[in-house]
Amino acid sequence: MVDVPALVEQAREGRPRAVARLISLVEGASPQLREVMAALAPLTGGAYVVGLTGSPGVGKSTSTSALVSAYRRMGKRVGVLAVDPSSPFSGGALLGDRVRMSEHASDPGVYIRSMATRGHLGGLAWAAPQAIRVLDAAGCDVILVETVGVGQSEVEIASQADTSVVLLAPGMGDGIQAAKAGILEIGDVYVVNKADRDGADATARELNHMLGLGEARAAGDWRPPIVKTVAARGEGTDEVVEALEKHRAWMEERGVLSDRRRRRAAHEVETIAVTALRERIGDLRGDRRLAALAERVVDGSLDPYAAADELVEGLTNGS
Amino acid sequence: MVDVPALVEQAREGRPRAVARLISLVEGASPQLREVMAALAPLTGGAYVVGLTGSPGVGKSTSTSALVSAYRRMGKRVGVLAVDPSSPFSGGALLGDRVRMSEHASDPGVYIRSMATRGHLGGLAWAAPQAIRVLDAAGCDVILVETVGVGQSEVEIASQADTSVVLLAPGMGDGIQAAKAGILEIGDVYVVNKADRDGADATARELNHMLGLGEARAAGDWRPPIVKTVAARGEGTDEVVEALEKHRAWMEERGVLSDRRRRRAAHEVETIAVTALRERIGDLRGDRRLAALAERVVDGSLDPYAAADELVEGLTNGS
Repeated sequence: MVDVPALVEQAREGRPRAVARLISLVEGASPQLREVMAALAPLTGGAYVVGLTGSPGVGKSTSTSALVSAYRRMGKRVGVLAVDPSSPFSGGALLGDRVRMSEHASDPGVYIRSMATRGHLGGLAWAAPQAIRVLDAAGCDVILVETVGVGQSEVEIASQADTSVVLLAPGMGDGIQAAKAGILEIGDVYVVNKADRDGADATARELNHMLGLGEARAAGDWRPPIVKTVAARGEGTDEVVEALEKHRAWMEERGVLSDRRRRRAAHEVETIAVTALRERIGDLRGDRRLAALAERVVDGSLDPYAAADELVEGLTNGS
Repeated sequence: MVDVPALVEQAREGRPRAVARLISLVEGASPQLREVMAALAPLTGGAYVVGLTGSPGVGKSTSTSALVSAYRRMGKRVGVLAVDPSSPFSGGALLGDRVRMSEHASDPGVYIRSMATRGHLGGLAWAAPQAIRVLDAAGCDVILVETVGVGQSEVEIASQADTSVVLLAPGMGDGIQAAKAGILEIGDVYVVNKADRDGADATARELNHMLGLGEARAAGDWRPPIVKTVAARGEGTDEVVEALEKHRAWMEERGVLSDRRRRRAAHEVETIAVTALRERIGDLRGDRRLAALAERVVDGSLDPYAAADELVEGLTNGS
């Protein structure tokens, strides 16, 4: 058994191995998962969670790394969670191919974690939010959640953030691809990366048009900005941070941030509840209680509905 | 509100309208469904349930009608449940196209009911067994459950019977079609109908080969018989009844009948429990309790797992 309170204390003190260990406990659905989550709860709520999504090749990893650098210059502690819903391989501090991230690997103010969610019980839905809670409780000021692929899972993860960043790069098909994947709707901030390439302005215009950003909006509505960057050279990154902070301030002023967090928490609780009920349903088969109830249905002393009630009752009482 | 005890009493006395009304209450998932099932439970267990399945065109309806006549000659009360999982139209005493059945329509010793299950909550799985319970409680000695189509749903319904009859008719493709649909494995008795046509012997041989009926079996094992019939002329029907009664006696001697009924009841209870839990999961969204729990997760006074526990607890207590 892991000494959870000690581990949480070490994570609060900024020890990367304690943070990594806590995320592993969460990922592995350890028997101590509930103890970990209960210990973390009072420590959460301080982090600003930013989701980054976009088609492969737009430079998500490079952009994430540039954002880490920018926030570090501001003295913030930063957590990075790179979620890959298509891979069964989790863990470590670094993905093998994330060369750009390696510059932050030795920085004690940065936690980097890759998480594969394909093999997870009940899908990825519950795992990523729990890892975010660990990073939050460990004192990260900003958590960047980068999804590796593009699809419904990525959209779901990104839309659970406080602020969602959608990345694009020049190229005709890109905007359409993003639109198909359903990620265009979720952006609070849009980034056209690789802005030194031909077609960057065209992509920004196309995006502006697709989002109807030129149209009139009600006063006080958020108008998602489009920021051009060359993340590999760090160009435009400060403007992205500025856009993020503006969105955050806008959300705080209007109570949108707490609304989003309540919705996110409701979704999280619902997902855990559904997963728990499904597991219990799966456990029904081969249950001795079920056999005993079936016996009573056969001899006519119990009807099947009353038997089902007893079964559900027994399941949910955990007896 | 329906006077359930009075209705059950009338059904016991053999009034067809009371039987029909009870089945309608069951089919429509009436709020009184549970009251009906509780009232029926002590009255069930007397009926012998025979499932009939086979590809379209093999003469299921004609064979069912011939079996009804044979059992009526023996003085038995007979219930017929024709289940069509692909149709949303239920009800009445007769399917429009079941001309052969109409000869039994005025016989007070026969209940005929067609049941469409496509539109049913949670699929057909729970509806047919409940209708069988009504017919059982109403005093039917034999219940013939005929499935209209051929597919996984039909296999499931047929395999829930005490004895499963698989029907075939001459024609090369037929055995293969049946094998594909998975109905070959479930037969306790096989019937090659339309045996006056060319190829009947070949179909019987093919079936014998596919089932490995020529191979040695352990003493006491059931060896499914293959009976040839011309149902439209009533030829071979007595032999089918004989095969059914032999199978029933074999099952009773070895305790197989009560085993099957326990399995059937367990399946039934499980299906009802799963349906109930799924409905509750669906009710989660928009629940005010969920919103209140989410609020506590956001302010850190509760972790999401503890919140999910409270939610599940609340759901299953029905509070």
